[in-house]
Amino acid sequence: MSAQTQQDERTAYYERIAQQRLTPLWESLHNLVPKAPRPQAQAAIWKYAEIRDLVLQSGALISAEEAVRRVLVLENPGLPGKSSMTPTLYAGLQLILPGEIAPSHRHTQSALRFIVEGQGAWTAVNGERTTMKPGDFIITPSWTWHDHGNPSVDEGGEPVIWLDGLDIPLIAALDAGFAETYPESTQPVLRPEGDSFARFGHNMMPVRHRATDPSSPIFSYPYERSREALDVLYRNGELDAWDGVKLRYVNPATGGWPMPTIATFMQFLPAGFAGRTYRSTDATIYCVVEGAGTARIGDTALPFGPHDVFVAPSWQPVALDASTDCVLFSYSDRPVLSALNLLREERV
Amino acid sequence: MSAQTQQDERTAYYERIAQQRLTPLWESLHNLVPKAPRPQAQAAIWKYAEIRDLVLQSGALISAEEAVRRVLVLENPGLPGKSSMTPTLYAGLQLILPGEIAPSHRHTQSALRFIVEGQGAWTAVNGERTTMKPGDFIITPSWTWHDHGNPSVDEGGEPVIWLDGLDIPLIAALDAGFAETYPESTQPVLRPEGDSFARFGHNMMPVRHRATDPSSPIFSYPYERSREALDVLYRNGELDAWDGVKLRYVNPATGGWPMPTIATFMQFLPAGFAGRTYRSTDATIYCVVEGAGTARIGDTALPFGPHDVFVAPSWQPVALDASTDCVLFSYSDRPVLSALNLLREERV
Amino acid sequence: MSAQTQQDERTAYYERIAQQRLTPLWESLHNLVPKAPRPQAQAAIWKYAEIRDLVLQSGALISAEEAVRRVLVLENPGLPGKSSMTPTLYAGLQLILPGEIAPSHRHTQSALRFIVEGQGAWTAVNGERTTMKPGDFIITPSWTWHDHGNPSVDEGGEPVIWLDGLDIPLIAALDAGFAETYPESTQPVLRPEGDSFARFGHNMMPVRHRATDPSSPIFSYPYERSREALDVLYRNGELDAWDGVKLRYVNPATGGWPMPTIATFMQFLPAGFAGRTYRSTDATIYCVVEGAGTARIGDTALPFGPHDVFVAPSWQPVALDASTDCVLFSYSDRPVLSALNLLREERV
Amino acid sequence: MSAQTQQDERTAYYERIAQQRLTPLWESLHNLVPKAPRPQAQAAIWKYAEIRDLVLQSGALISAEEAVRRVLVLENPGLPGKSSMTPTLYAGLQLILPGEIAPSHRHTQSALRFIVEGQGAWTAVNGERTTMKPGDFIITPSWTWHDHGNPSVDEGGEPVIWLDGLDIPLIAALDAGFAETYPESTQPVLRPEGDSFARFGHNMMPVRHRATDPSSPIFSYPYERSREALDVLYRNGELDAWDGVKLRYVNPATGGWPMPTIATFMQFLPAGFAGRTYRSTDATIYCVVEGAGTARIGDTALPFGPHDVFVAPSWQPVALDASTDCVLFSYSDRPVLSALNLLREERV
Repeated sequence: MSAQTQQDERTAYYERIAQQRLTPLWESLHNLVPKAPRPQAQAAIWKYAEIRDLVLQSGALISAEEAVRRVLVLENPGLPGKSSMTPTLYAGLQLILPGEIAPSHRHTQSALRFIVEGQGAWTAVNGERTTMKPGDFIITPSWTWHDHGNPSVDEGGEPVIWLDGLDIPLIAALDAGFAETYPESTQPVLRPEGDSFARFGHNMMPVRHRATDPSSPIFSYPYERSREALDVLYRNGELDAWDGVKLRYVNPATGGWPMPTIATFMQFLPAGFAGRTYRSTDATIYCVVEGAGTARIGDTALPFGPHDVFVAPSWQPVALDASTDCVLFSYSDRPVLSALNLLREERV
Repeated sequence: MSAQTQQDERTAYYERIAQQRLTPLWESLHNLVPKAPRPQAQAAIWKYAEIRDLVLQSGALISAEEAVRRVLVLENPGLPGKSSMTPTLYAGLQLILPGEIAPSHRHTQSALRFIVEGQGAWTAVNGERTTMKPGDFIITPSWTWHDHGNPSVDEGGEPVIWLDGLDIPLIAALDAGFAETYPESTQPVLRPEGDSFARFGHNMMPVRHRATDPSSPIFSYPYERSREALDVLYRNGELDAWDGVKLRYVNPATGGWPMPTIATFMQFLPAGFAGRTYRSTDATIYCVVEGAGTARIGDTALPFGPHDVFVAPSWQPVALDASTDCVLFSYSDRPVLSALNLLREERV
Repeated sequence: MSAQTQQDERTAYYERIAQQRLTPLWESLHNLVPKAPRPQAQAAIWKYAEIRDLVLQSGALISAEEAVRRVLVLENPGLPGKSSMTPTLYAGLQLILPGEIAPSHRHTQSALRFIVEGQGAWTAVNGERTTMKPGDFIITPSWTWHDHGNPSVDEGGEPVIWLDGLDIPLIAALDAGFAETYPESTQPVLRPEGDSFARFGHNMMPVRHRATDPSSPIFSYPYERSREALDVLYRNGELDAWDGVKLRYVNPATGGWPMPTIATFMQFLPAGFAGRTYRSTDATIYCVVEGAGTARIGDTALPFGPHDVFVAPSWQPVALDASTDCVLFSYSDRPVLSALNLLREERV
Repeated sequence: MSAQTQQDERTAYYERIAQQRLTPLWESLHNLVPKAPRPQAQAAIWKYAEIRDLVLQSGALISAEEAVRRVLVLENPGLPGKSSMTPTLYAGLQLILPGEIAPSHRHTQSALRFIVEGQGAWTAVNGERTTMKPGDFIITPSWTWHDHGNPSVDEGGEPVIWLDGLDIPLIAALDAGFAETYPESTQPVLRPEGDSFARFGHNMMPVRHRATDPSSPIFSYPYERSREALDVLYRNGELDAWDGVKLRYVNPATGGWPMPTIATFMQFLPAGFAGRTYRSTDATIYCVVEGAGTARIGDTALPFGPHDVFVAPSWQPVALDASTDCVLFSYSDRPVLSALNLLREERV
């Protein structure tokens, strides 16, 4: 049988089976089962200097109340139309102006806030409020009621901007999204600020606590403490050739991740640090807290400065250089990959 | 400001921020954070009587060796072009003819085989072969070498068809796919058939075994035993109004799922069973082992008979009726939803 | 100061502090914190040929009902008056005659039965009965109602003897013993024999089962299956130089031990096996199922034959020789040592 | 048969079986399997005012170096000669004078130190030192090298007294004690003070840490932080009718206990608190940090003041009253009972 005849036969067959919603695996096997990850997401950076004004302009365009969440979504250029930074994670910059309130709701998506600029606004989670300051890492875990607000200018309020990180694309891929709106714009405050931190934040725990939720019972990790931990370790001589000084945030009730779908990290790179190359199957989004340097991701070199946001897709080689002392916050889908036994790492 | 002006301003703003790869969350929030799952996957059924001949015809069209895996992919009509049955799972019908061998490879995708028709062919996993019979449930876990073959006609071989279930779409969504081809077409046989079952299958375990892998150390669950367990329980009076008699397959080394991403079940519905309605966030693919009945999924009624394959998307109401005694095998992404605290169920 | 004066001063001081219920640690430190375990328990053996008649004589001396449990306790000669075989475990030989019933009770002690001789008697646990045959391993977990009985001679009953293993000394050392007597002599039978095995024994599990108890949901492990697993593995070439072919019993719902305080094992030693020496911090009690050989424990050589019971204290070197094909059942406190991170093993 | 004859027969039988190291269970069953715990340990208190001088006098009697550990053991009057406070736990008061060093060793016993009086002395664990202050809770986990010392008077050293808590009786009951002496009197200092706390104490953790030991990677829990947590919660309105405000210490790498065999707690009782009665199978040793009140344990009322030590045996009803604001530190064998599924609690 000639190759042409064979091809014709196959084509006819493919049309026939298509009637039964069947397709031939052998024509797509290499795409479906690739030798190594081929992410559509691309390495990319958002320079804070170039987008800060745009974020602030949104304040005049729409109110927090109307927007529900007034956020500019950072969309990965390799994932157009998907409102995604990676296949599983979303990133956005949120603005809240003095005197505004963003209404209370809850959803199965897990969410984090990493405060970029401004202070004094509050986030409320399950009846407790926390005041936000730059560098603070705050969580609003899956299915917890949460809202936020900002004191008026008279009360000392100022515009506050933070990075929102959510697992929206993951929850969409799993068809597991539920959401509810709270009947009032803010939920009642049931406990004083700092209550959950007093219960769980000091390497102690209420004696009768039974963990029923994998998410952390503390929802604010203040920058002051994270920064101090990094400083002490750096002074003590800790410096990994790939990571610098890198800590991960922990759910103090379990030693696990703060939320079951998103890992969060903070790391210090001293001026002059030229990091070695690693890669991992967790795609990671970085937010620069302090300092400047260059992220080399695959073939791309991304110079970064304070508050810039950049992304490293799965399995792309990453190396981090610091021209000044740098602090980087980052988040990834590592807990998902770990839980499913799919985490793979390589350090060159 | 008029509504039109406001809209114009916003449109202009959206164009401006698009230059920076930014999009306004408030225009897409309801899509991104839905009130409840809105799966694109649809309830659908593949009638074995209508596709069996097509499967057998593939045997003349391409060899197992050329195809690597000669499979017709069952593609959900709501997910065109995606070779997917649900957002996380794949289903296909594989054919192996007498005398054929499908070459050895491994991949991070977890895979199951549920034998539909024919017997005598073997699957090899990590150095051990198992002979396949209808109703057997076999796993080829993530990153295990696996191949399969069929004795020649002279040796008593006959065409064998099974349902392949894999987490291909999930691994793709996580950018976590790796694959390798074994240097030879079949891997060496290191242990006699039945060795792993003797080690782990009898509620005993080697005294020095340390589980380093979440997947089950036994890779074949014979139908004979599964069927007997269902029979005994039915005779003992067990009958759940939603499930009939339903068991899940277990990794005997942990009590967990056989593989970390795919749950598998077998259930018995006696003739006349009119199941109550339930729904769940795990999307489930069913394969009819014996009997006939009707699956009511959302607004769709799907009459089913032996070897038919049907799918219930996430959160769609499902009720199962049996006109004759039925045995159903099924698989879903429940372990993923459980591990990420996203499993939600409702029984009416 | 002279040594005598110093000693006098110290003696006077010790008397003074004794008034306050204080003692000087430095006089007892080496005893309290030894360099290595110094068990008071001794290696010892009970020859079934020498004690079988004594066990049977107890049948004429007291009824099962009056005795509650008609058991001869095997008392370690190094632990006189303690009814103990090791510091944590108890062993006894129980007799039940045709037509007898041993009344239902429950206690926090975990208990096992290993059937030595006779068959047809039953054990009931939580509403289900199992018929006992030689070599069967049966558990009556902590706080489960259990009773047992034997058909009358007319119904084919015969005297049945088994080895009882309990954690009585451990529970006493923890002051954690509770017990209750059932209001009637036998508990009601709620499920047919074999029900729990059908639910959990075939590497499957009820789909909605939630483990609330660490003990195994199956309570009978038939000898037939355990023996077959050992046979297959031996034929497949498995033979550890220390253990021969050794499997541990498993809770199929968790992969853990059948009960949280007692590990159980069965091993095969082929004729001529001359085992290498090992030691471990779990003290182990052996019951010979089939065959004859010699256990070398510390400086003691203990020749053993069918149904003999012998004990190896913590950290004593143990080597097992087989003159004929041997099957040994054994139990130890390994789960306790593992849970508390105190298990230490050494293989020479 | 007359009762006398029967008794004679039994006695003769008991003598016969005793030759075979057998005893009749039915004569001891009620003792071996009691209806409820019958602890030999008694409720007791050690008044610091009455024993402080005795502790200080030991300083003249023997050096820390000669004593290895200069400790007065608090021996429960119900457990004479056993150097035990409860069947599983030991308590002692240790003195270290200025300029002294207690030599480095390690043992499988887990140990805690709760600082009672004096400050400036250090404890070293696995290459890191921590300076001790009153109220600090410090661990020297199983098999970790540890030593301690005190600066000379010239360097500001002062006598320091702490409560030692160990699981010595438990390890003895399990025949699992091993110990080694370090070749030099102090181990080398490998990391600056505070290093492990910086790594693990701030709800963060080194990104590549893999827990290989169940014991806490931080070994000092400063009083300042524990006290603050209690204060905040009390101000926030937390007050349990049985416990007052009670927290347990946590291993921040797991959320579990700081050591696998000993639980530790700190609680605040406001002046006037009249606690309700509870009981539990974990026997608990209390050390009063601040304040005065009365512990009612079983039929005993024990008035307590600062630094007093008292003990509540298993299953004894306990109620705590506070005449002034009180802070109590306590430790128990709760992790052992929990791990073995033997913890039982009752709150009246």
